[in-house]
Amino acid sequence: MSLPRIAIDAMGGDEGVRVMVAGAALARTRYPQVRFLLVGDQEKIGKALDAHPDLRAISEILHADDVIAGEDKPSVALRRAKTTSMGMAIHAVKDGSAGAAISAGNTGALMAIAKLALRTMPGIDRPALAAILPTLQPSDLVMLDLGANTECDARNLVQFAIMGAAYARIANSQPTPRVRLLNIGTEEIKGTESLRDAAAVLKDAAGVLSMRFDGFTEADKICRGEMDVVVTDGFSGNIALKAVEGTARFVGDLLRRSFASSLRSKIGFLISRPATELLKHQLDPNNHNGAVFLGLNGIVVKSHGSANALGVANAVGVTQRLLEEHLTERIAADLARLGEDTLRAPRKIAVEAGQ
Amino acid sequence: MSLPRIAIDAMGGDEGVRVMVAGAALARTRYPQVRFLLVGDQEKIGKALDAHPDLRAISEILHADDVIAGEDKPSVALRRAKTTSMGMAIHAVKDGSAGAAISAGNTGALMAIAKLALRTMPGIDRPALAAILPTLQPSDLVMLDLGANTECDARNLVQFAIMGAAYARIANSQPTPRVRLLNIGTEEIKGTESLRDAAAVLKDAAGVLSMRFDGFTEADKICRGEMDVVVTDGFSGNIALKAVEGTARFVGDLLRRSFASSLRSKIGFLISRPATELLKHQLDPNNHNGAVFLGLNGIVVKSHGSANALGVANAVGVTQRLLEEHLTERIAADLARLGEDTLRAPRKIAVEAGQ
Repeated sequence: MSLPRIAIDAMGGDEGVRVMVAGAALARTRYPQVRFLLVGDQEKIGKALDAHPDLRAISEILHADDVIAGEDKPSVALRRAKTTSMGMAIHAVKDGSAGAAISAGNTGALMAIAKLALRTMPGIDRPALAAILPTLQPSDLVMLDLGANTECDARNLVQFAIMGAAYARIANSQPTPRVRLLNIGTEEIKGTESLRDAAAVLKDAAGVLSMRFDGFTEADKICRGEMDVVVTDGFSGNIALKAVEGTARFVGDLLRRSFASSLRSKIGFLISRPATELLKHQLDPNNHNGAVFLGLNGIVVKSHGSANALGVANAVGVTQRLLEEHLTERIAADLARLGEDTLRAPRKIAVEAGQ
Repeated sequence: MSLPRIAIDAMGGDEGVRVMVAGAALARTRYPQVRFLLVGDQEKIGKALDAHPDLRAISEILHADDVIAGEDKPSVALRRAKTTSMGMAIHAVKDGSAGAAISAGNTGALMAIAKLALRTMPGIDRPALAAILPTLQPSDLVMLDLGANTECDARNLVQFAIMGAAYARIANSQPTPRVRLLNIGTEEIKGTESLRDAAAVLKDAAGVLSMRFDGFTEADKICRGEMDVVVTDGFSGNIALKAVEGTARFVGDLLRRSFASSLRSKIGFLISRPATELLKHQLDPNNHNGAVFLGLNGIVVKSHGSANALGVANAVGVTQRLLEEHLTERIAADLARLGEDTLRAPRKIAVEAGQ
């Protein structure tokens, strides 16, 4: 059975159509099953495809007149969902002409359009943005939410844990993912009431959900490879992710500066180039590109605005994997297994939800 | 006029008295004016001083029978404030027999005892924990709150900004510090209501306060040297700080692993050693040790539990500088200049405070 194709918003991202098409072409060489619906300015896409005849053979173009700009507010983007490349790519998932959508455009707009068009899955109150981070171990880390929800209650956090675990099972081929909640200490009394309540639910439900709930983690431990999923609200998640990205760049800059500080260091740098290239490869955000909106009736993947063709190809790889492994169906099955009752317990959360 | 002496909780920290005394001895060689009150087990301190006769000459020992353990809850610590080395060091500040206290013990306990013994300054609702972070520029960054307050309202954030700016004026010798609020985007509509309200107050009051308020910053920009103060609630601040620390260590580990990956890389590493040593120096947390509790009637500095003698000496350096520059008096003057009215504006905050 062939997999559904992937709709690509060809106009999003800092460099637009050229990089998106080059990324799709690179992905084609890696994932032989992949097929595309390229959404955007027909003429520009056609021109970009001239350099990639093999890609043209597995792609259809869907013309869109309009583009959502980086600074457009979600409310503005929503009104133009039917005429823009981003909106039309998502609507292709809604009407079944594609199985998933990828865009490198404005995250807020993408979230708003995807939520309205695809709706959240039964049992999920709010979708979450999840990304993969590298760790010191061979396994990667799934972290969510990364900014879709500024404030979250315990119920949201529990749902994020379920969705993150489903993602980790696919990303890390790990049947029983190790899940933790991000907090400012590991003792049970630490953090907000929402965190403590979510921890109580996850502790009880971990067995039913085929996950291991290991309690809280602090932000300095997340890249050590001791966990598969880190769950947090969108505010803290965004802060943590950006602090990680900024520091990796900061250390890289310091390193470059240190190596340039003397002739001897420059020579050492040239000799140890394979080592620094290896490091550069591990820290290059293009190698971890593709954040996934989880909890919607359909797969929507955000490619970084500054991603290059390699980054776009990796986002396609993430998307293809999630289609192959039926992520949405798996999350639905987990939610059904858990049942509404458990999701509302303990009493504290029921009270909160009733407010 | 000689400066007041510094009370050191000699028993705190992972390695206790030996490191604390060695750190004080190192500090003595750097800061000729410094004098100490060493608080803890008389016999152990006396023994540690045998190796440091010059330190003994400028120190007095204050015997404490008891020690607060790393896992002691704040409530337990409070009950033992009068008999423990940590509690007695803080009480020395309260009764005027020392000008400031340093401890490498349990942060929660230190905060609780300091708050109860020294009380918050008039005009400050809650104290905040502030630390210095390195940046790509010669100037350092003051970041607060780092975990003293899990949830903060706009009024708290404005007060943190005032205290952080006073600290940055001293740390960076920068008369008009550039202040930003940590958020998940830089647009005015981003983040929580507390953040937006605090931004409105700071925008209006920046002139009166001799600071430059530059709006919001995201967590990936904080180490670039484009700001002097980053203000945030204690939850996000703790997450950001630990994410920075963890990533710096993570990249360091990857780098070591990369250099060990081949003989060629190992040779390159040996040649470029001065460069990697420079990097190691810049990233060593001991070089940025000493987080300050701001907003109390007295100076209390937290030294990292794992700090070595160099780290402790740096914490003493921070403390001595704050005494010399009269940090507490300066914050009081700023608060007086601003006046209660401005601190309560805008209306939103007055309403919140009245709830």
